[in-house]
Amino acid sequence: MNQLHSSPSTPGVADITFSRLHNDSFLRACFRQASDHTPVWLMRQAGRYLPEYCATRAKAGSFMGLATHRDYATEVTLQPLERYPLDAAILFSDILTVPDAMGLGLSFALGEGPRFAHAVRDEAAVAKLAVPDMDKLRYVFDAVSSIRKALTQDGKGRVPLIGFSGSPWTLACYMVEGAGSDDYRLVKTMLYSRPDLMHRILAINADAVAAYLNAQIDAGAQAVMVFDSWGGVLADGAFQEFSLTYTARVLEQLKRVGPNGETIPRIVFTKGGGQWLQDMAELDCEVLGLDWTVNLTRARALVGGTDRRPGKALQGNIDPNVLFAQPAQIDREVTKVLDSFGAPYQGKGTGPTHIFNLGHGISQYTPPEHVAALVEAVHRHSRAMRAAA
Amino acid sequence: MNQLHSSPSTPGVADITFSRLHNDSFLRACFRQASDHTPVWLMRQAGRYLPEYCATRAKAGSFMGLATHRDYATEVTLQPLERYPLDAAILFSDILTVPDAMGLGLSFALGEGPRFAHAVRDEAAVAKLAVPDMDKLRYVFDAVSSIRKALTQDGKGRVPLIGFSGSPWTLACYMVEGAGSDDYRLVKTMLYSRPDLMHRILAINADAVAAYLNAQIDAGAQAVMVFDSWGGVLADGAFQEFSLTYTARVLEQLKRVGPNGETIPRIVFTKGGGQWLQDMAELDCEVLGLDWTVNLTRARALVGGTDRRPGKALQGNIDPNVLFAQPAQIDREVTKVLDSFGAPYQGKGTGPTHIFNLGHGISQYTPPEHVAALVEAVHRHSRAMRAAA
Repeated sequence: MNQLHSSPSTPGVADITFSRLHNDSFLRACFRQASDHTPVWLMRQAGRYLPEYCATRAKAGSFMGLATHRDYATEVTLQPLERYPLDAAILFSDILTVPDAMGLGLSFALGEGPRFAHAVRDEAAVAKLAVPDMDKLRYVFDAVSSIRKALTQDGKGRVPLIGFSGSPWTLACYMVEGAGSDDYRLVKTMLYSRPDLMHRILAINADAVAAYLNAQIDAGAQAVMVFDSWGGVLADGAFQEFSLTYTARVLEQLKRVGPNGETIPRIVFTKGGGQWLQDMAELDCEVLGLDWTVNLTRARALVGGTDRRPGKALQGNIDPNVLFAQPAQIDREVTKVLDSFGAPYQGKGTGPTHIFNLGHGISQYTPPEHVAALVEAVHRHSRAMRAAA
Repeated sequence: MNQLHSSPSTPGVADITFSRLHNDSFLRACFRQASDHTPVWLMRQAGRYLPEYCATRAKAGSFMGLATHRDYATEVTLQPLERYPLDAAILFSDILTVPDAMGLGLSFALGEGPRFAHAVRDEAAVAKLAVPDMDKLRYVFDAVSSIRKALTQDGKGRVPLIGFSGSPWTLACYMVEGAGSDDYRLVKTMLYSRPDLMHRILAINADAVAAYLNAQIDAGAQAVMVFDSWGGVLADGAFQEFSLTYTARVLEQLKRVGPNGETIPRIVFTKGGGQWLQDMAELDCEVLGLDWTVNLTRARALVGGTDRRPGKALQGNIDPNVLFAQPAQIDREVTKVLDSFGAPYQGKGTGPTHIFNLGHGISQYTPPEHVAALVEAVHRHSRAMRAAA
């Protein structure tokens, strides 16, 4: 068994025990508790930069063939953990599974991004939208259970499993545009000209995402993350109204406790959201993800709290392109990011904590041996920082 | 004659007189002086959304055919001023003329972005780079003189002319990538793995951009703007080292005074730079351009100064996608942006001023009549704000 338990008498997060996890550094950091090194995982760590991933994808035939197949999804989720001493696993899936389950017809043409057969562009299309039957997403929950079981059994990957979803706004971008976009013209045209329709889509998305993440928690996810990948394309004011409000609506519906009584930390990542950290500090979540444009010293001062004042754990934020430099240079850039966050909390209560990550997903062109250098540098330098304190 | 004169006895900007310009609101706002309305112009206001632009481009045969032909460049620069009561003209040109003059071979395939025949990706290519002979950019300076003459003569467009260039970093992005990019992998690989080469490119670019803008000033540009279109893709720290430093190097070489003794205001626009406003406040320039993610109330408080404290004029920042909504909605969004900046300075010295603009270039799909609605709304509401104060 590989579960976390709250103390039954005192439900505060500081009382959670992580003793049954081989490596609990990630969950401890989520709850702003000390750990002996800065935990690290990488957005999109199971992906095309790994030859073994490409081999599994070839067997599966397509991206959705991979994502919808329990055993393949389990296999690729575990692949990066075989190579690197990462401190968390993240479900292999796509952020667009929810609108696909709404009937919009998701596909991935080779070498292109996602595409929906039925974009949502008018009142009639919006009227047809509804929170999908979660049975249509059973393949995701089956994968979560399978991965969790594998993490418990194989003895190599005794790290927590993160579930995730796209944010309501990010899903809406794809649903209205029908594909990726570089100007968000269609979705913003709706936002500015028919805000009523946009709010309707976002409300449905928020309720769907909440149901989806709750089902992942039931299936065994030990943390959940909301990817607001496109929140940063919104204007100031529009971000708060059309993205943040609906992320908050997701969070307020989430289960706080998993099937075995363990408290589930919640991470919110808004790419391009660095200017809105103080708004995001109000969210009912434990961790804020940051992209590489954010100064970690300032972010910690703004929202990281202290040992006497509550705050968010911070996750991020090295530029994924650093991984194209040589190991010595990767080491130097890792050190800069760790030093920018500063001295990690080492007390017995709660204080400012850092979860190392990229500022966005890893590039498919990344040399796998450079990832090893990054993970090693994070562990080594973050241990040295603790020893020096 | 249509020139600005400094008072010979007191060279401070507050003493500049604008009496020979029909409409001096833009220049007054650049120098943080009061005007009777908030001046407005639009990034890429001469462009594909105008049918008359498309007609001229068809005559010219290609984008570079248009940009390198003095009379065509003059014609399209003036087109938006014929339609709308804009408060400034901006030279029609491209940000990549300087690297083209360095011999990199710029072209624009139809329906695609810019492309260089000779990308700069290794030490040998960097070694060949040099500040180009400004004679190769004569077509730009000829266009500036021609536009300035036309603005003086035709009586319709008595507004100042803005010259411009891409920033050293933005030029470097295109020079190394060889084209647009969505991940900046090649240019960032060089930045992280060969910072010496990147600094060499940026130093040459900065000196070239300074010479280029100085020649535009000599030819008649009454303000100059540096477009750091891709500064916002850099990591915190890297932005300061690889973009801001070289924008500062441009600014320190710029002529402060034009050929007729007029002081030349300098505008710096970093798309995605909202988190670095306090760094940019240190730049030796008069105006900071802001994209739509920036909260104008906060930007004004941080860098706008007061009537007793110096600061920057602020330019921006409505989302260009607002122009896809209907006129009543455009009016509402314009009001939000003006109100976010707040009460404009109305005294006789200097204080916080706002130049209305988009947060980025206008979309080619914009309905031209919506631009009329936006300009009208800016003028009407900004006059009402002054009357109400």
